[in-house]
Amino acid sequence: MSANTRSWIGFLSDYGLSDCHVGVCHGVIATTAPTARVIDLCHEVPPGDLRRGGALLAQAAPYLPPGVLLAVVDPATGPGAGTRRRALAVTAGRSVLVGPDNGLLLPAARALGGASAAYAITSRTHMRHPVSATFRGRDLFAPVAAHIAAGLSPAALGPEVPVEALVHLPEPVARLTAHRLEGVVLSVDRWGTVQTTLGAGLFEEAGLRVGDTLTVHCRTGEVRVPFGRSHADVRPGEAVGYLDSAGLFALARHTNSAAEELGLQPGDSVAVRLPTAVDAVR
Amino acid sequence: MSANTRSWIGFLSDYGLSDCHVGVCHGVIATTAPTARVIDLCHEVPPGDLRRGGALLAQAAPYLPPGVLLAVVDPATGPGAGTRRRALAVTAGRSVLVGPDNGLLLPAARALGGASAAYAITSRTHMRHPVSATFRGRDLFAPVAAHIAAGLSPAALGPEVPVEALVHLPEPVARLTAHRLEGVVLSVDRWGTVQTTLGAGLFEEAGLRVGDTLTVHCRTGEVRVPFGRSHADVRPGEAVGYLDSAGLFALARHTNSAAEELGLQPGDSVAVRLPTAVDAVR
Amino acid sequence: MSANTRSWIGFLSDYGLSDCHVGVCHGVIATTAPTARVIDLCHEVPPGDLRRGGALLAQAAPYLPPGVLLAVVDPATGPGAGTRRRALAVTAGRSVLVGPDNGLLLPAARALGGASAAYAITSRTHMRHPVSATFRGRDLFAPVAAHIAAGLSPAALGPEVPVEALVHLPEPVARLTAHRLEGVVLSVDRWGTVQTTLGAGLFEEAGLRVGDTLTVHCRTGEVRVPFGRSHADVRPGEAVGYLDSAGLFALARHTNSAAEELGLQPGDSVAVRLPTAVDAVR
Repeated sequence: MSANTRSWIGFLSDYGLSDCHVGVCHGVIATTAPTARVIDLCHEVPPGDLRRGGALLAQAAPYLPPGVLLAVVDPATGPGAGTRRRALAVTAGRSVLVGPDNGLLLPAARALGGASAAYAITSRTHMRHPVSATFRGRDLFAPVAAHIAAGLSPAALGPEVPVEALVHLPEPVARLTAHRLEGVVLSVDRWGTVQTTLGAGLFEEAGLRVGDTLTVHCRTGEVRVPFGRSHADVRPGEAVGYLDSAGLFALARHTNSAAEELGLQPGDSVAVRLPTAVDAVR
Repeated sequence: MSANTRSWIGFLSDYGLSDCHVGVCHGVIATTAPTARVIDLCHEVPPGDLRRGGALLAQAAPYLPPGVLLAVVDPATGPGAGTRRRALAVTAGRSVLVGPDNGLLLPAARALGGASAAYAITSRTHMRHPVSATFRGRDLFAPVAAHIAAGLSPAALGPEVPVEALVHLPEPVARLTAHRLEGVVLSVDRWGTVQTTLGAGLFEEAGLRVGDTLTVHCRTGEVRVPFGRSHADVRPGEAVGYLDSAGLFALARHTNSAAEELGLQPGDSVAVRLPTAVDAVR
Repeated sequence: MSANTRSWIGFLSDYGLSDCHVGVCHGVIATTAPTARVIDLCHEVPPGDLRRGGALLAQAAPYLPPGVLLAVVDPATGPGAGTRRRALAVTAGRSVLVGPDNGLLLPAARALGGASAAYAITSRTHMRHPVSATFRGRDLFAPVAAHIAAGLSPAALGPEVPVEALVHLPEPVARLTAHRLEGVVLSVDRWGTVQTTLGAGLFEEAGLRVGDTLTVHCRTGEVRVPFGRSHADVRPGEAVGYLDSAGLFALARHTNSAAEELGLQPGDSVAVRLPTAVDAVR
């Protein structure tokens, strides 16, 4: 792989945009790898939200040119905390993911075809010193991402770690049972659309298809919605379910917020009842 | 026109910054046109707000280098909805505007000297497949913008459409009557400054000039403000009217929010009374 | 200095991201200096907040490649207001800072080794005309920054001004008295971490070191916190004090907002009591 194929850096964090954390990381990258180009994916990941950060990274990864994925969401709690978390460079497809060993990187690695190798970043020459205890993005992750974008082999960063030994987040619920599809709310967007963990494959397996009427059970009760293709399939105020642009089941309302109407937020359970007929056949 | 003159892409949307929609579009552009450079204009257009999106695009367009303007605000309601909206490439000046046929692009086309041609985008080779029903930015608009930035002629995208046949938004009210200038609130910025549809030309026609005292009628009553050049012309707490950096009449308060004080929001009516003297002369 | 060493432009403002002000400045820069590359530092500086803008710029400046720092926070009140504020180009280290003469640029100049020269920008050839009274970023500061990035010497912009004659903001309180360290809250981040004006040097001078227990006095009372290295040093819900990534004393709570808990906001006073023992020794 030539240095050039990795000169793109996709950057995701929970830094927010109300101070200069993101800009400082850009500055550090520009200093180390002046020809690298950074694509800001999202910096408004809720503070420390590994599940949301991991899901966003995974949904974006397939659409970026091969290169580096720099992701920094690193809560003081959760998997790997307590002891200092390892910093990782994980190769997947033609890209390299750089971030903490807390599960954040692995959904994106899967979306790129699976992690092929992982390295614990220990090489002090590729960090800024002193490495701040509270801003490893600036002093460790961004410089390392820049070095890789400039052509450094991830193997030069430190010892290889078996992929199986990396910290994994528990898989979010998404399953087909005898009577229903059971999943969890993954996110709510600015239109109030509720994205769940239920993927297209499960709907196919369940024999549910566009045109069916779905009975969706959630914390605030049960709703019946058409299984459509987008919120444009229903009339203003009406709800609809569809497989969204990431291939995940979403609940939306035409011109209204489905999330508000249904009282749903990330982490809530959602179940789609299988039609009795289909059920009987299975 | 050489490919190079179109290598800039100005990008406006209502995607917001709390997920990866914008970053994914950047990724798609980078993949198709690696040397294109994207200028993010605004992604915080209120969801589906065509009027606001159109006005912002028109105010920004004259300050960008010639190139591509990619704009995605595409509500399920409003002009053109119901049926699948057409996707357009519209040439204006030395630039090409790419977006839905719902009126969003036309104010910017006017600001660039007027639409010279329009093409309905039907060429499937220039899209990503399958084209998602809920994320045409990623699968249709961004790839097409990238192809144009890389040198593709807009005429290669699909059949030409008469400019007159494009969907237009109704022109927002802005007129000189016998006794007043009648307009509408276009936007409120983070300082609480109220931007109206009333342009510099109307004030000239009305014989109103800097130094006059203006009587402004709005939904919450009548205010008298000096016609100045900026909020720096008055003392803290005082209101002022001036022609803003886009050439539109704005109401501001020094250190306070005029919008809050006057209870104004986008869409509200505003009228500036003509002085009786001027009126008599006319 | 070759033109190339200045081709990076760090850009900070209080424009926000809900309209196109930032994008328009990018467009103006792209038109004048197509090969310049802009790093957005922060555009969410609270409107007109010179102290916050100045502090952010100073914290980011050392991490950027040498080039231009473009900063626009320009309230109608405060130092230099009333009369039209001068526009400045200030050289510091290998960079040039461009912005209003209201104190905004000087903390960053100090962080880069001190202002070596300052020029009042009067050259009309390097501005856009007419220069709007309400958007000098677009018509004056961005074009000038672009010209410098493209190789223009700051001395070509207008008459030199003695650095001592520039408008300075009063230094925020940060001092060691007989019994305590006295400072002020500088900012609160999205995690609720409270950043103060108290620097690492003062703690050293006071003989306070990591592992000590600190008694912090603030408007809502007194808290005792361990002097650690990050919020990871304490258990969920517990508070900690540490020197942050900018070398400033910060108060944080593991998983909670210290700012909320302590009722602190920017501008509030904070004092760290010296241990009696240390005090007696001095």
